[in-house]
Amino acid sequence: MNCEAGYAKRLLEVDLSQGKIQKTPLDETLLKTFLGGGGLAAKLFLDRFSPDLDPLSRENPLIVMTGPLVGTLLPGSSRFAVCARSPLTGFWGIGTCGGNFGPELKFAGYDGILIEGMAEKPVYLLIDDDTVELRNAADLWGKDLYEVTDLLKQRHGEKKKPKILAIGPGGENKVLYAAIGNDYGHYIGRTGMGAVMGSKNLKAIVVSGTGKVLPALAEEYKEVRARVIEKCNESAVAQSLKSMGSAVNVDLGMMTGDVPIRNWRQGEFEGSGKIGGPTMTADYLTKGHACYACPIACKRVVKVDNGPYQTNEGPGPEYETIGSFGSYIENDNLEGIIKANELCNRYGIDTISTGATIAFVMECFEKGILTTSDTDGLEVKFGDIDVALKLVEKIAFRKGIGDLLAEGSVKAAQKIGKGAEAFTVAVKGLELPAHDPRGFHGMGLEYAVGYRGACHLQHMTMYIEQGMNIYEGVGLESDYVGQSSDGKAKMVLISQNMGVPLSSACLCVYVYACIAPQDLVDMIHAVTGWDFRLKDLLNIGARIWLLMRGLTNLMGARSRDDRLPNNVMMPLDNGGAAGSKLDLDKMLKEYYEMRGIDSNGIPKKEVLENAGLHDLAVRLHGGT
Amino acid sequence: MNCEAGYAKRLLEVDLSQGKIQKTPLDETLLKTFLGGGGLAAKLFLDRFSPDLDPLSRENPLIVMTGPLVGTLLPGSSRFAVCARSPLTGFWGIGTCGGNFGPELKFAGYDGILIEGMAEKPVYLLIDDDTVELRNAADLWGKDLYEVTDLLKQRHGEKKKPKILAIGPGGENKVLYAAIGNDYGHYIGRTGMGAVMGSKNLKAIVVSGTGKVLPALAEEYKEVRARVIEKCNESAVAQSLKSMGSAVNVDLGMMTGDVPIRNWRQGEFEGSGKIGGPTMTADYLTKGHACYACPIACKRVVKVDNGPYQTNEGPGPEYETIGSFGSYIENDNLEGIIKANELCNRYGIDTISTGATIAFVMECFEKGILTTSDTDGLEVKFGDIDVALKLVEKIAFRKGIGDLLAEGSVKAAQKIGKGAEAFTVAVKGLELPAHDPRGFHGMGLEYAVGYRGACHLQHMTMYIEQGMNIYEGVGLESDYVGQSSDGKAKMVLISQNMGVPLSSACLCVYVYACIAPQDLVDMIHAVTGWDFRLKDLLNIGARIWLLMRGLTNLMGARSRDDRLPNNVMMPLDNGGAAGSKLDLDKMLKEYYEMRGIDSNGIPKKEVLENAGLHDLAVRLHGGT
Repeated sequence: MNCEAGYAKRLLEVDLSQGKIQKTPLDETLLKTFLGGGGLAAKLFLDRFSPDLDPLSRENPLIVMTGPLVGTLLPGSSRFAVCARSPLTGFWGIGTCGGNFGPELKFAGYDGILIEGMAEKPVYLLIDDDTVELRNAADLWGKDLYEVTDLLKQRHGEKKKPKILAIGPGGENKVLYAAIGNDYGHYIGRTGMGAVMGSKNLKAIVVSGTGKVLPALAEEYKEVRARVIEKCNESAVAQSLKSMGSAVNVDLGMMTGDVPIRNWRQGEFEGSGKIGGPTMTADYLTKGHACYACPIACKRVVKVDNGPYQTNEGPGPEYETIGSFGSYIENDNLEGIIKANELCNRYGIDTISTGATIAFVMECFEKGILTTSDTDGLEVKFGDIDVALKLVEKIAFRKGIGDLLAEGSVKAAQKIGKGAEAFTVAVKGLELPAHDPRGFHGMGLEYAVGYRGACHLQHMTMYIEQGMNIYEGVGLESDYVGQSSDGKAKMVLISQNMGVPLSSACLCVYVYACIAPQDLVDMIHAVTGWDFRLKDLLNIGARIWLLMRGLTNLMGARSRDDRLPNNVMMPLDNGGAAGSKLDLDKMLKEYYEMRGIDSNGIPKKEVLENAGLHDLAVRLHGGT
Repeated sequence: MNCEAGYAKRLLEVDLSQGKIQKTPLDETLLKTFLGGGGLAAKLFLDRFSPDLDPLSRENPLIVMTGPLVGTLLPGSSRFAVCARSPLTGFWGIGTCGGNFGPELKFAGYDGILIEGMAEKPVYLLIDDDTVELRNAADLWGKDLYEVTDLLKQRHGEKKKPKILAIGPGGENKVLYAAIGNDYGHYIGRTGMGAVMGSKNLKAIVVSGTGKVLPALAEEYKEVRARVIEKCNESAVAQSLKSMGSAVNVDLGMMTGDVPIRNWRQGEFEGSGKIGGPTMTADYLTKGHACYACPIACKRVVKVDNGPYQTNEGPGPEYETIGSFGSYIENDNLEGIIKANELCNRYGIDTISTGATIAFVMECFEKGILTTSDTDGLEVKFGDIDVALKLVEKIAFRKGIGDLLAEGSVKAAQKIGKGAEAFTVAVKGLELPAHDPRGFHGMGLEYAVGYRGACHLQHMTMYIEQGMNIYEGVGLESDYVGQSSDGKAKMVLISQNMGVPLSSACLCVYVYACIAPQDLVDMIHAVTGWDFRLKDLLNIGARIWLLMRGLTNLMGARSRDDRLPNNVMMPLDNGGAAGSKLDLDKMLKEYYEMRGIDSNGIPKKEVLENAGLHDLAVRLHGGT
């Protein structure tokens, strides 16, 4: 089935408890109002599910959602979101991912999948255009993510080239930050969506589709596509990503104070040159790789030929993984990082939360809060990648101390006691990604107010604060001083309002970093045919941000959760962000006022009403 | 106006912004369903106010509420509750108090007062039976609590003996744990109700009444009154309270591990003998004192004749104050404690939160987290009562570091950073009173799940766990082992269901400790004339507990807030509770299940519906 004007207008609904599968229509008004991706998923959740359901129970839905651009040939249109209440944070959970699953799902004729209930025994979902069925996954349970992807591609790949979404042992064992992988190298890593999938006994989703995603306005589509491809080709950002992958940020980030070191306690790291993009490109890269229809092709394929960290040829570590298994834990052995990346991929656990939790353990060990009697005899010291690799395995299989660490650093610290919580580096229970707010204060505000916890990806904040020229016509200043808290509230607010629809349209931020807001407006207009202007984009942005924030509020978040951890609030003595100190209180105050958030951290009733979120306003504030 | 069948059935409503005063009827069904005190206040709040209002804004109501027994001659019937959203915790705030204000308010013909808005300039409320007016308080503002009480008694005491409710500088300066005082020696100390009153520019309430509180069933009333007085006279608990006041618990508590020492880090305290009931009685007591119509008369009047801690004759410290300014901070100078009590009384700040916050600062100072450059040059060391007295003054007037400490230990720790939060001893932002859960594990569970934070007073938990014989006919075991977590979930649940109606009927726990549940049932029946049985008492208990818990949930509390602080979870090396370790997870799990609380910490929808709390169920869980 083809998707006309960008949408299939169909939702695939699967009830695993009852084995029931149905295809329900998606109303155009709903699509116009919430666009797709996380926005549409949040709306479905709000309307149909309770905010206080147990994240690992049959009650929690797992919502896979694409957007209007997905499956077109517009650059960056490969992405999709997976949403549920997060078992890691207890708040709204969302992870987004590139690769090829999203487009293929559209080709099969679905904008998204809503999975409810829990299968009695392991199953996988097989989608072949209109034919949809649940299959026994007894033989797949226990396989790692690469293995199960191989097996399913082989089994269902005789005539077609199916795309696979799957979990590894991490998801099966309900590691609270378990990931979901798409075809080896693409991950929904954050907020533990893999644990939700695992709790449902759903090992994988296999999809093949033969339809197309057709734009409503063919001529305009052609024009905007050519324009955007050209911009991508000309962009310095795209060029550096193409040549060195996201690892390009390691060296640049060291200079600007963006890279966290030694559980965020240290400003300088001598070994950083050994783990960055140039080293990976020179010594381990075998080829580049692109998500569906992407002209940038930032993905890396790497191989460690021999030695203790030998790997097969496979997906290379992203910048975030280099941060969390490199500077975070003071390790400068890139081969060890590549190995850690392979293990996390195969086991299906989020590299950021895994590395961050290990860094937390290292600091606890250094402080004497944990000793070898707690750590199965391991000396968990900074810089020791071998210990880190052992912990990765313990976590994925919940063995020994891994059972505690599989709960994430914040829950683990609560159980450890003895002041361990002071050494967690997380917001709303989600460990910080590898961008240090002391280098870019706006990033700190974005972390603090984030609906999914500390997030670098859902909005454009980082790019704007780092000076990328992508803010034409939306009211932003032309220059921001990274290590200052001035003017950041407005910057963060606008970047959210820009970034949210990007994420709901399911476009890649790297492509967005090459273009201007009007280009995105033109893309949506060309594909959907809607009368769609820049103001509509920004309105949708505010609406969806408020919706997700409100969901997180309904799940219990208040202003006290809009805080940054100690290790990040303390200034550093040296390095690129030496002496930089965030004025979080000031930024929060300004931001709350501009966004219309009350002192509890809840968007005000009139603000929600103005954004067209009446039901949410009533749920949060009472009234009718 | 007389109160027939226990109630005036009138609420005095005062809008300070508009200067509007009205008397509105209270419906009998409402009274039957929520009884009075905190229960009725919570219902009024839920129906008419938003849970996310700013506690120090004009939106927050201050609700003063008595109950059906108040003003009768039944023992312990002196009490009343003051409620609002707490500025200290952000959750449901409630403080209760003995004295004579509650009965006098009933004599004037009101069950309660609901104060809204904010006066432009300082005022006080003058109630003389039906004549109610707001008076200019410009000359009273800045006076301490004893001074303003003297002044108002003099000014309005020519023909009558008015009873006074007032705030001191603590409330005026919005110390977040400011108290409200009634006639020198009775305080609504907890959760900062004094700050709410101060934020309204309301310095005092003066009440004189000439009515009576008449029981519905005179014969039964006479019988139950005689029975209860006899039980009080015979009770060993009452005898020890009569002879030594609540300070009697110091020596007993040292043996059982009930008394917290050195910010809860230490199990033994050599100086405890110097600060207990016998010393106070022998060296400083001038006379005893009773709340309205009380045969126990546990209150103390004391005087320090000379030396650096000289005081006038006045109210003596309760056990809680001896704990917080004694063992909490490792001070064994009782004269210093009496002085601290006088200062806290005059300034109108909660002795528990004040002492606890000072103990927290002492530990931070010891750990090097705070230095003299943070503390206005003071060496804030354990055992130094002189430094503590200086901090009391700084806090009340928000001078120097006092401005930070006036926010309470938890908010202060967040601002301090550097891991200071590990040394706070609070639940839901409310500092723990002087009863150590390591001595009595059930107390720990009660603290953890408490709707107002760590509370010793609202329910009967402590008495039951300490072996008092007050549990006839309500399903409790006859004996509990204090230092065990077994069976405590059920004990806490039933003690809450027993204690809540006690508090809503506004009876004193000390009287309740002398009688049996059926006596309370008989008292309510005799006064109101309702067909009222033990099951009704327990149903009301469950309903009101769920209502207050639900309010705290609406204000953002979740299961993560049902935790105990580190310093309490770590076992002690010596003392009465040496080696005792709470199994909080087990107790919570059992308790959640018995109470019907979901994994988020929210009472389940059907549980709320069954308790007759439909509106609350919808607010918390959605639906209609």
